Amino acid sequence: MAVKTNGKLHRLRQVLAEVTDLTRAARVLEWDQETYMPPGGVPGRAEQLSTLLKLSHVRLTSDEVGRLLDDLEDELADAPFDSDEASIVRVTRRDYDQERKLPSELVAEAAHAGSVARPVWEKARHDDDFSLFAPYLEKNVELNRRIADALGYKERPYDALLDRSEPGMTTRQLALIFAELKQAIVPLVSDIARHADAVDDSVLYRGFDPDLQLSYALNVVRRLGYDLERGRQDLSTHPFSTGIDPGDVRITTRVSRDFFNECLFGSIHESGHGMYSQGMGAGIDRTPLWDGASPGVHESQSRLWENVVGRSLPFWRHFFPSLQAVFPEPLRGVDHEAFYRAVNKAHPSFIRVEADEVTYNMHVLLRFELETELLEGTLKVKDVPEAWSARFKSYLGLDVPNDREGALQDIHWSSVSFGIFPGYTIGNLVSAQLMEKIRADIPDLDAQIETGQFASLLSWLRRHVHIHGRKFTPDELLERATGKPLTAAPWIAYVQKKFGALYGLKQPVRN
Amino acid sequence: MAVKTNGKLHRLRQVLAEVTDLTRAARVLEWDQETYMPPGGVPGRAEQLSTLLKLSHVRLTSDEVGRLLDDLEDELADAPFDSDEASIVRVTRRDYDQERKLPSELVAEAAHAGSVARPVWEKARHDDDFSLFAPYLEKNVELNRRIADALGYKERPYDALLDRSEPGMTTRQLALIFAELKQAIVPLVSDIARHADAVDDSVLYRGFDPDLQLSYALNVVRRLGYDLERGRQDLSTHPFSTGIDPGDVRITTRVSRDFFNECLFGSIHESGHGMYSQGMGAGIDRTPLWDGASPGVHESQSRLWENVVGRSLPFWRHFFPSLQAVFPEPLRGVDHEAFYRAVNKAHPSFIRVEADEVTYNMHVLLRFELETELLEGTLKVKDVPEAWSARFKSYLGLDVPNDREGALQDIHWSSVSFGIFPGYTIGNLVSAQLMEKIRADIPDLDAQIETGQFASLLSWLRRHVHIHGRKFTPDELLERATGKPLTAAPWIAYVQKKFGALYGLKQPVRN
Repeated sequence: MAVKTNGKLHRLRQVLAEVTDLTRAARVLEWDQETYMPPGGVPGRAEQLSTLLKLSHVRLTSDEVGRLLDDLEDELADAPFDSDEASIVRVTRRDYDQERKLPSELVAEAAHAGSVARPVWEKARHDDDFSLFAPYLEKNVELNRRIADALGYKERPYDALLDRSEPGMTTRQLALIFAELKQAIVPLVSDIARHADAVDDSVLYRGFDPDLQLSYALNVVRRLGYDLERGRQDLSTHPFSTGIDPGDVRITTRVSRDFFNECLFGSIHESGHGMYSQGMGAGIDRTPLWDGASPGVHESQSRLWENVVGRSLPFWRHFFPSLQAVFPEPLRGVDHEAFYRAVNKAHPSFIRVEADEVTYNMHVLLRFELETELLEGTLKVKDVPEAWSARFKSYLGLDVPNDREGALQDIHWSSVSFGIFPGYTIGNLVSAQLMEKIRADIPDLDAQIETGQFASLLSWLRRHVHIHGRKFTPDELLERATGKPLTAAPWIAYVQKKFGALYGLKQPVRN
Repeated sequence: MAVKTNGKLHRLRQVLAEVTDLTRAARVLEWDQETYMPPGGVPGRAEQLSTLLKLSHVRLTSDEVGRLLDDLEDELADAPFDSDEASIVRVTRRDYDQERKLPSELVAEAAHAGSVARPVWEKARHDDDFSLFAPYLEKNVELNRRIADALGYKERPYDALLDRSEPGMTTRQLALIFAELKQAIVPLVSDIARHADAVDDSVLYRGFDPDLQLSYALNVVRRLGYDLERGRQDLSTHPFSTGIDPGDVRITTRVSRDFFNECLFGSIHESGHGMYSQGMGAGIDRTPLWDGASPGVHESQSRLWENVVGRSLPFWRHFFPSLQAVFPEPLRGVDHEAFYRAVNKAHPSFIRVEADEVTYNMHVLLRFELETELLEGTLKVKDVPEAWSARFKSYLGLDVPNDREGALQDIHWSSVSFGIFPGYTIGNLVSAQLMEKIRADIPDLDAQIETGQFASLLSWLRRHVHIHGRKFTPDELLERATGKPLTAAPWIAYVQKKFGALYGLKQPVRN
């Protein structure tokens, strides 16, 4: 029987290796498209990517894979939950069932709707005319709903969409977490807004040579632990990280002479994603397990390095002298503490992707609420701008001046992709929850960071997060690593303490 | 019936589009491997490429494709030979039959033998020890023979291998052409060797700033007609060109401060390949026709631009002043004629890839002879070094000092790839044969080149060569473009005239 199992597992791994190779090839093509592809390559590249993804879908959802999974589930019933074998079968089953549940016509219709809506959304945003985009958003809401119905759910249709990207998470669970966040963060945002002058970030706009910024950033991420033998950094309009295979995990960045944060913090952020992929276990290579546990968990790694480490005082105690040596002019008369304060300036603003550490989750909360309500029909598309403005005022205290800086700002709704936004907040919360445990396990972490030592931090993340890839759901991973499922408390405590000190606020009595 | 045909053709084109997309994805991965891939990517990339090529093979050789071809051959029996429809079916049939004839175990055995032999060949070359490599070459000869037997042939086993890369060409036809070449070129080489001092190329070694060389070369290829909206130039160890799709055809180059020819002529060479791919017809996109007619015809385009145009006097009349403006120091006191002479210096040498325009074909002749004899058993592997030295002496007048600069120099024999070398000579001959007709059709071509006008030359090549892709065999293409199948006479006349003048030789009485 063991031989039989081995034979079937071997066969399953062969198929999964092909599926993985196809998606890896697609990642190379996508990386190339964002970095070096000439303009003429656009139409051909769309065809090539569509073929690769179609073939990988066909291969994964074949009847043969279904039979192998049926047999292996029986034969591996006693295998340990966290063994590579049991996990490969369990996670492949999840992917297989989800992909099989979606009729290919629905997938094609959704892809088509997205490609039709995208240019309309671009024009609507440019013209600041929500009514142009509204009929397309209605169609996309309908398709999101049909996808949710096809996938199935126990309580709320949004559960089905959420489960696709954040396995195991429910709308109910997230709603509770967001309620907790709202209660703590809305008053903090308002406190910060009233003490805005306490932090001066003008130093960041003094002009920094782009080439020097790029080489400095590359040196920093190398020092953090991003392995350049198995990676590289290039320029792209929108920074991203892509894990092609264990030996090839790339990051991109962008650089602005006039705003320091963009390049360095963008690079650190992407290197956080990159180190995650570089740390996945060899036993899960060329299987569906070789990937992040979820977009939210991936984001926890980028945010941990970018914000919790990169925007910390110990970090700047270590790096500021070398930064000042590279940029003596713009940093004349500045010290590490002033620089630390500058890179942490927080203020409510309209655009999510430019939001700071404190306000970011409020942008996500708003989208989470609108998506669930649209999906359930309690909010109509035509009322989205009004709902947006009302909640923006309530959560961030600002009057939204137009839809371009409001409901039309994100590309996400131009395609059929509800359920993605919560991952950004999950990332923030997970980073703080992990860090709480890391500080307990590595009591002198700040002292290590101050002396430029990041190895034990990276090693902790490798052991508790990276090596597992997609083996566990986000909550399973957090339970194993920290003893608790996802909770907002560590992140709330972290920002209250950090920004309370930065802005000279009284510690809140509410919590 | 028309509807039926259209339905089947449509279906065939769907399958071929997928096959093409897979090979195009592989080309992006190969380009990436040679340009930007980090060192750690090597093992994963080999897996990804192997999966893409395997899936494309499986898709092309499916029973469904066989049935579609059977039906379409009947239904398109009256379609014009040169129509897209008839040509797609004809060329797909050729590929299909060839790939079906090779048992997959034989293909796998050959791939395995190549991967085993490669590092041994590297060590043998490094150690200058042919005996190390000999058993692996014996295995490769045997596998070449088994492939030839599987493919089938009428006269000689080499025909089967030749037909794979240069469709329609036979060993007999090539042997006649090489005999003609030998008769004319051996004495020319020896004449040139006796007048070696007539050409001074020391100017090429005076030191040229690499960045300036790269930007100058890119500007030259753009002026020739290589479209940078649909292409780009990068650095790689071995320059190459790759046609990914009609909107994305890339070239690479290398640059040496100490030797001028490498970068500029390498770039022009690759841009010749690139312009070929950029000129293929829209109707054959995503079919097996979207590719060069053969490696030999591809090489004709690169050689035509590199040598017949780029190493001509009118070319340097036009470009030398701008080159001198970019490199005033190394080109001080040099005029366009001296520079033209320098870039054309010819001299017998040991290494094929460094050989000049005159001697190059003698290197190929030698390999062609040894490959056919090995394949037919009239030459034993152990006698290769001796045979190599004897012929080298006879064709190029030099005593081969060691096997490293002799029979161990090429990577080709470390894999199972007999039949490739003749394409290099075919390229040279085709370039001259086309140019003879071009000069008849465009009588003021030299005057156009002298004034930097390349549009009518490129347009002629587009119309008579590029647009057809793989629609015709090399001989069919030449018949249509020049009225004759492949012949050595135009190339012989071209080098005799050009190098006779350069070296002050009497015109040969022999021909």
